[in-house]
Amino acid sequence: MTNSGLLDSLTAELGDVVITDPDILASYRQDRAEDPDAGTPLALLRPRTTADVQTAVRWCAANSVPIVTRGQGTSLSGGATAVDGAVMLTTERMSTIVIDTATRTAVCEPGALNAEVKAAAAAEGLWYPPDPSSFEICSIGGNAATNAGGLCCVKYGVTVDYVLALEVVLADGRAIRLGGKLLKDSAGLPLTKLFVGSEGLLGIITEVTVRLLPAQPPASTVVGTFASVGDASRAVLAITGRIRPAMLEFMDAVSINAVEDMLHMDLDRSAGALLVAQSDAPGEAGAAEIAIIEQAFRDNGAGDVFSTDDPDEGEMFTAARRAAIPAVERLGSLLLEDVGVPLPQLPTLVEGVAAIAAQRDVVISVIAHAGDGNTHPLIVFDPADSDQTERAHLAFGEVMELAISLGGTITGEHGVGRLKKGYLAAQVGDDVMELTRTIKQALDPQGLLNPGVML
Amino acid sequence: MTNSGLLDSLTAELGDVVITDPDILASYRQDRAEDPDAGTPLALLRPRTTADVQTAVRWCAANSVPIVTRGQGTSLSGGATAVDGAVMLTTERMSTIVIDTATRTAVCEPGALNAEVKAAAAAEGLWYPPDPSSFEICSIGGNAATNAGGLCCVKYGVTVDYVLALEVVLADGRAIRLGGKLLKDSAGLPLTKLFVGSEGLLGIITEVTVRLLPAQPPASTVVGTFASVGDASRAVLAITGRIRPAMLEFMDAVSINAVEDMLHMDLDRSAGALLVAQSDAPGEAGAAEIAIIEQAFRDNGAGDVFSTDDPDEGEMFTAARRAAIPAVERLGSLLLEDVGVPLPQLPTLVEGVAAIAAQRDVVISVIAHAGDGNTHPLIVFDPADSDQTERAHLAFGEVMELAISLGGTITGEHGVGRLKKGYLAAQVGDDVMELTRTIKQALDPQGLLNPGVML
Repeated sequence: MTNSGLLDSLTAELGDVVITDPDILASYRQDRAEDPDAGTPLALLRPRTTADVQTAVRWCAANSVPIVTRGQGTSLSGGATAVDGAVMLTTERMSTIVIDTATRTAVCEPGALNAEVKAAAAAEGLWYPPDPSSFEICSIGGNAATNAGGLCCVKYGVTVDYVLALEVVLADGRAIRLGGKLLKDSAGLPLTKLFVGSEGLLGIITEVTVRLLPAQPPASTVVGTFASVGDASRAVLAITGRIRPAMLEFMDAVSINAVEDMLHMDLDRSAGALLVAQSDAPGEAGAAEIAIIEQAFRDNGAGDVFSTDDPDEGEMFTAARRAAIPAVERLGSLLLEDVGVPLPQLPTLVEGVAAIAAQRDVVISVIAHAGDGNTHPLIVFDPADSDQTERAHLAFGEVMELAISLGGTITGEHGVGRLKKGYLAAQVGDDVMELTRTIKQALDPQGLLNPGVML
Repeated sequence: MTNSGLLDSLTAELGDVVITDPDILASYRQDRAEDPDAGTPLALLRPRTTADVQTAVRWCAANSVPIVTRGQGTSLSGGATAVDGAVMLTTERMSTIVIDTATRTAVCEPGALNAEVKAAAAAEGLWYPPDPSSFEICSIGGNAATNAGGLCCVKYGVTVDYVLALEVVLADGRAIRLGGKLLKDSAGLPLTKLFVGSEGLLGIITEVTVRLLPAQPPASTVVGTFASVGDASRAVLAITGRIRPAMLEFMDAVSINAVEDMLHMDLDRSAGALLVAQSDAPGEAGAAEIAIIEQAFRDNGAGDVFSTDDPDEGEMFTAARRAAIPAVERLGSLLLEDVGVPLPQLPTLVEGVAAIAAQRDVVISVIAHAGDGNTHPLIVFDPADSDQTERAHLAFGEVMELAISLGGTITGEHGVGRLKKGYLAAQVGDDVMELTRTIKQALDPQGLLNPGVML
């Protein structure tokens, strides 16, 4: 069928759900990874209901048209990137949230923002912990599809630890419901967990039920500056060896200065690294944790150590850390890493990244959810400088190879997407790649769901 | 090939790993569910290494012989039950545990006991939380295969929340490694989580790496007796609505009396129900939680309320709760339920179970991990009384149907096994059953891994 024939057929099925305006389509081609190889989609779909999604998937299956699902397009790994001739499906119109205080759960349509889920929970005195730095602009459906992490994960876990139930539209258009408002459920294969983090390869998530916690206790914050990234990372180990902090974040000199340029909050521009740690343990236990953190900072040569139990002051430093990626983005184009290592390898990783930056003569700014060994080296380059661009891409691969050599992962929380798929086999091995393809083939025999991602 | 030809061939491959003594074989036919339909295995294998397991699986694949894996045979759902002509593989000789204090992980062979993992961690000042009541006799491999729960799960989660990495032998004999000593890892499909709780259908777990926590803080314990199971279950909701207790366990009158008969610890035989709750929050926060628990007990008509911060006294009551299943077993044969419901439905469930017991004229003792809505109604019957046996089996199904009707699950932590497979479709629906079969078929096309379980 011609494109025009396909569009007529699709519109006959889905009416005003189908958008064909080229300017609108263009704005949905890429996610925040800005993959230059993004394709041109046939159409954009804005479904309002699960039934709309089922109709779309059935139509795609019948016409062998690929379908790429997109939440808010905040993927940093190219997980929501158009391919030529595909249908782009955005969940942005499906955004209701229903809080159930009795079961302490939130039933969310996938397009609801993480921040909206948090706000709806907070209005009932409850808390949805997972907090990607992009929480104000990323969707809960995307969080589930990528098993998103964040800052509080070091103590409170990642998205999969909160997903109790899903509604998923399979590749043949059937909608299934998995799990329930149950804190424990061992009935059947653990399919809910298979879909969380499956990056859109196995089905389209149309509803997410998450567990909520009682409101987080007020946290105290300690900020310390260090002469080097090595010192700061050794301070991290001194803390995680003794306690589970509620947050333990890391910034290097490049990111400190980039954030200071943007936010003007009087950060120490001369510091080699900065750590922001929090404890939300109550009373004396919290005071004891704060003392352990302060001691670990000092034992590892911290210059300034600033502690506060004022939540607003603490949030200022947390916000500074969350602003690091946009701030460093102002220095040039970025290749975003998401490598993680077993915690004892953290100093080796950050020092190894610095060595790669020196050898390839590129700027690599390292920020990290240091408490769980998950780092984001940000490789800065000027796309107009082809030699630098090539060196940046070489460094991009070398950082992942370094992480793998340390027993680590190429992605701690962003997913493989399109950007890192060339390195996945090196981490997991050929047999696991084959098993992955076997499961993909079993659930999506035509290979129409989010093609080009992961595999 | 004849059985004798098969045995010769198997012995040629595996030597003294192969056991054919009929008395020994007989002792491995059943697990603790004592399924009367257990088959007679061809042989028992006691592999020492992953390579032995691979050899066994390859031989089974080549000869189309089913293979049933068994940890310590403590399944309460028939998950490790022999089928005629199958190879029974016990992991009991694979039991080393290596604690890595730097990454705070334990690398365990599957035959290691849960209690041995806990002890090895404790020797380094660390803690492996999941604590099935059978923790002293169940294996960590079985825990992983069934995603086992326990008493501390209400605050600390279940087995899957601790498994960071697995080695798995697939149906074709390949051994794959999944995950690593990483607190966050989003590389590829979430296959580690797919195997945890897969009940032996997709592969044989030959190594489990679990995350450890700092040692649990000392817990305070509150014990209360109630006039009725309804009152006790409403007290549970009053607690879970405000705090996350470290333990919240429930026993009814039958189990109180059965435990008292066995342990003689001066429990109140006249009570309709008993709750044991713990808080391990530190200092004032712990005192506040204990006060909330005591108040919830009194507000719901508790008679005696006893509080202690003596860990040994607390452990005495925890041990009483753990002894409930063996104690009730002394009253007759048991059909063991493992139904769970959304927490607000707990009173409706326990009162509905009492109604089923009355209507079917059978004794059903209810014990529960009440804080997460997971209950174990134990249906007592005399197998020599065929009419009572039939009524017990009718009640067994009706309890599961009741749980499903309340939005619940037929199994919160024991797995589906053989005993509950007839009820799985009613809970999850035909489409999820088909998806389950699709995945099983993709990973085990010959259907040789643990046949008869779940599907």
